Amino acid sequence: MAPPHRERSEPFENGCICIICVMVKILRDKIIDVLKREDYGVTVNVKGWVRTRRGNKNICFIALNDGSTIKSVQIVADLEKFSEESLRKVTTGACLSVNGILVESPGQGQQAEIHATEIDVLGEADPATYPLQKKGHSLEYLREIAHLRPRTNTFGAVFRIRHHMSMAIHTFFHERGFFYFHTPLITASDCEGAGQMFQVTTKNLYNLKMDEKGSIDFSDDFFGKQASLTVSGQLEGELGAMSLGAIYTFGPTFRAENSNTPRHLAEFWMIEPEVAFNEIEENMQLAEDFIKYCVKWALDHCQDDLEFLNDMYDKELLQRLNSVIAGEFVRLPYTKGIEILEKAVADGHQFEFPIFWGADLAAEHERYLVEEHFKKPVILTDYPKEIKSFYMKQNDDGKTVRAMDVLFPKIGEIIGGSQREESYEKLKQRADEMGVPTKDIWWYLDTRKFGTAPHSGFGLGFERLMLFVTGMANIRDVIPFPRTPRNCEF
Amino acid sequence: MAPPHRERSEPFENGCICIICVMVKILRDKIIDVLKREDYGVTVNVKGWVRTRRGNKNICFIALNDGSTIKSVQIVADLEKFSEESLRKVTTGACLSVNGILVESPGQGQQAEIHATEIDVLGEADPATYPLQKKGHSLEYLREIAHLRPRTNTFGAVFRIRHHMSMAIHTFFHERGFFYFHTPLITASDCEGAGQMFQVTTKNLYNLKMDEKGSIDFSDDFFGKQASLTVSGQLEGELGAMSLGAIYTFGPTFRAENSNTPRHLAEFWMIEPEVAFNEIEENMQLAEDFIKYCVKWALDHCQDDLEFLNDMYDKELLQRLNSVIAGEFVRLPYTKGIEILEKAVADGHQFEFPIFWGADLAAEHERYLVEEHFKKPVILTDYPKEIKSFYMKQNDDGKTVRAMDVLFPKIGEIIGGSQREESYEKLKQRADEMGVPTKDIWWYLDTRKFGTAPHSGFGLGFERLMLFVTGMANIRDVIPFPRTPRNCEF
Repeated sequence: MAPPHRERSEPFENGCICIICVMVKILRDKIIDVLKREDYGVTVNVKGWVRTRRGNKNICFIALNDGSTIKSVQIVADLEKFSEESLRKVTTGACLSVNGILVESPGQGQQAEIHATEIDVLGEADPATYPLQKKGHSLEYLREIAHLRPRTNTFGAVFRIRHHMSMAIHTFFHERGFFYFHTPLITASDCEGAGQMFQVTTKNLYNLKMDEKGSIDFSDDFFGKQASLTVSGQLEGELGAMSLGAIYTFGPTFRAENSNTPRHLAEFWMIEPEVAFNEIEENMQLAEDFIKYCVKWALDHCQDDLEFLNDMYDKELLQRLNSVIAGEFVRLPYTKGIEILEKAVADGHQFEFPIFWGADLAAEHERYLVEEHFKKPVILTDYPKEIKSFYMKQNDDGKTVRAMDVLFPKIGEIIGGSQREESYEKLKQRADEMGVPTKDIWWYLDTRKFGTAPHSGFGLGFERLMLFVTGMANIRDVIPFPRTPRNCEF
Repeated sequence: MAPPHRERSEPFENGCICIICVMVKILRDKIIDVLKREDYGVTVNVKGWVRTRRGNKNICFIALNDGSTIKSVQIVADLEKFSEESLRKVTTGACLSVNGILVESPGQGQQAEIHATEIDVLGEADPATYPLQKKGHSLEYLREIAHLRPRTNTFGAVFRIRHHMSMAIHTFFHERGFFYFHTPLITASDCEGAGQMFQVTTKNLYNLKMDEKGSIDFSDDFFGKQASLTVSGQLEGELGAMSLGAIYTFGPTFRAENSNTPRHLAEFWMIEPEVAFNEIEENMQLAEDFIKYCVKWALDHCQDDLEFLNDMYDKELLQRLNSVIAGEFVRLPYTKGIEILEKAVADGHQFEFPIFWGADLAAEHERYLVEEHFKKPVILTDYPKEIKSFYMKQNDDGKTVRAMDVLFPKIGEIIGGSQREESYEKLKQRADEMGVPTKDIWWYLDTRKFGTAPHSGFGLGFERLMLFVTGMANIRDVIPFPRTPRNCEF
């Protein structure tokens, strides 16, 4: 039981039952707190939305949920005290304020329930039009009403877990002395190919000025040049690492890829740590520690929500989460990975895509290594330079770069990273070879010109992590308002 | 002294001096940790960038900084052990790895220093071209080299504080049971006037298809309609609050306003909490608690950086921060505020802009109330409805709305918020009166149609908070890579 509010540092905190609060107004208790209380007999106030209503001619049971937990509190209304008329508007989706007595629930496995003394309907929900009736809805249908779906058990669970994963990320890096570094979203440099970027403009499209060569004149655009939405904060993140030592980004990122798949979003969140003086071994250790920390946080903080998702969507979810934090990740050079896959083919395993040294691995190859061969997460390193980015550190063999991809069960690649090329000459040469316009990234090259050092980093797509932790199958179901081709609702 | 790594949960943590680490490689110590150590006589390794180098023909002093703290560690190199030639490349900006013996510094007020046994130049910085020599640079000049400015004391301090303020924000809300809710950045609804928004498109601007009416056909654009960058996550945030109970956003926001001032950015970060069942009084308390929590966090965690900024930029900074957390904020209805300002005018105070009931307050009015009249922060409430947004709860007087602005010394408005209109009819009517296209926000109106409830929220411009906490005068100096009209570098 919470102490009276005058004894607490924060006045009017939830749960206060001192005389001042009770006389003035019975303050609201969050349902997550009410369900833990055992001071039966006191008066409480809860506010929330009706999930279900059932009962008979003597009694009415209302399951009320306020979003603080997946569990609803049971409100018991004695029909001798409440007229049918007064309860007419208590329908699924309606918002109630309920005063009542906290009572130990007779139901098995249930916690406290509330015997109502006063029920106030704050907001009605017309049963004829409210889109979320109690019957189960398909995930596809719920995407159409993404503005209401957080009121369901499924999406309440997913978005509470999303919060917890964000908090785990910030806490992990904060505890290790990393600084959260806000890299820009609007960018005038384009290092990954313009085809996949959204243009950002304030130009009047009805009156586009052309120069004498027939090119659109962007000198009068907001930034005085063409601008677009970033596909990564890494390059700017490296600037942070090469001054503050260790930074991470955590923010929205964009891809204008016309992919209508369960794995692609046009707007998604990324985490990108960069660390000065880290070489690839330390980068691998950081990635492994990081992802285990997040998964453990979920298991420690989101038990009710995970159990629900395990029961409803993915019976192996909890087992998979526990297995990931139990053992060491395998560390395997790409070349050895190819040998394993080639042997699998020789032994009769069928892959859709051909496998050979130099090939980019398809999801089926990654999953074979993780799920069938090693049966644990794999960090694959030292990829052929041709299939990786210009900024990765070149190995002495002249063929491979110090890339590292973390491959996970069910998900495939969950993290991609590398040691970065710290030599100005090698970096410039590789950028030129790969057609990266170095005039746009003079500032990036400057870090190698002035006080360069070995450094490493990686990127984690936050929604990939969310898919893994929640067991959901479609990336549109782990972000509140997904942006995909032809979909920009809400 | 850190225990040997085999006794610790995390192998290869910094500071390990066990035989394994020393034999294989002396692991790096962060300078923030080295400066706290007193186990003089041990061998340590530090890596960082040279801030200054001075000395005489017998000895060389190098100030080395790795970004972990504003303090540099002093490296002492005895020129009997190091040839001039071997130290030739130890210049300002160069990156070094130094092994040496930890020694108690004889200098007054200094902590440990390192007597070098081995100095390795990881990256040179040619004194002829390195843009950050040791002399003081103007903030204007440093904006031109924003990719290098985090290597200065000033920007190291600012960006470490920026991290800490982010962490304070997440921790404050997490401890209070709020959920971090990611609202979308790309939006097809436009509730604040298109003139100030950036358009987002993948259309080929050289081949814009028009329909028969001469309008650009956006049906083949990425989202199948016109889209832009959001100016606020509030409306979507309310959807989160009306299901999860209490949420906050913390993410980038955009204004395409052509304002070249020390207060405007085209891309900035906002924090927007929304809470179901909170009325304006609880909203005010939340705002006051929140901002005091952040300021107190800065005082508790960023002492060295704040002292530097206090000394170099704003001699009243620490005093101002302490004063804000010391007392209660004033709570004052707008109408009473106008009376005070009108009396000031009657008493001979000169304002540039006229003051009368119905006027929007100018910065000079806000600062008069805060700095001259009350001498403490003021929460101004119940503004005329004409100067506030359509979604604010209308008071019974028919003239005012339950808005609340938190006004701060030096900054003026630092938070703007309100209780939200929960009545569907009143909200719809006010939106129509103010020309808000309600067909674009049917989903927002739905929250009032289905299970509506009183709720409140506010918005805080993160860079406004940063200006207040750091004492910096220009908003371009509190974000790593500012985006402003005609400026999209890095």
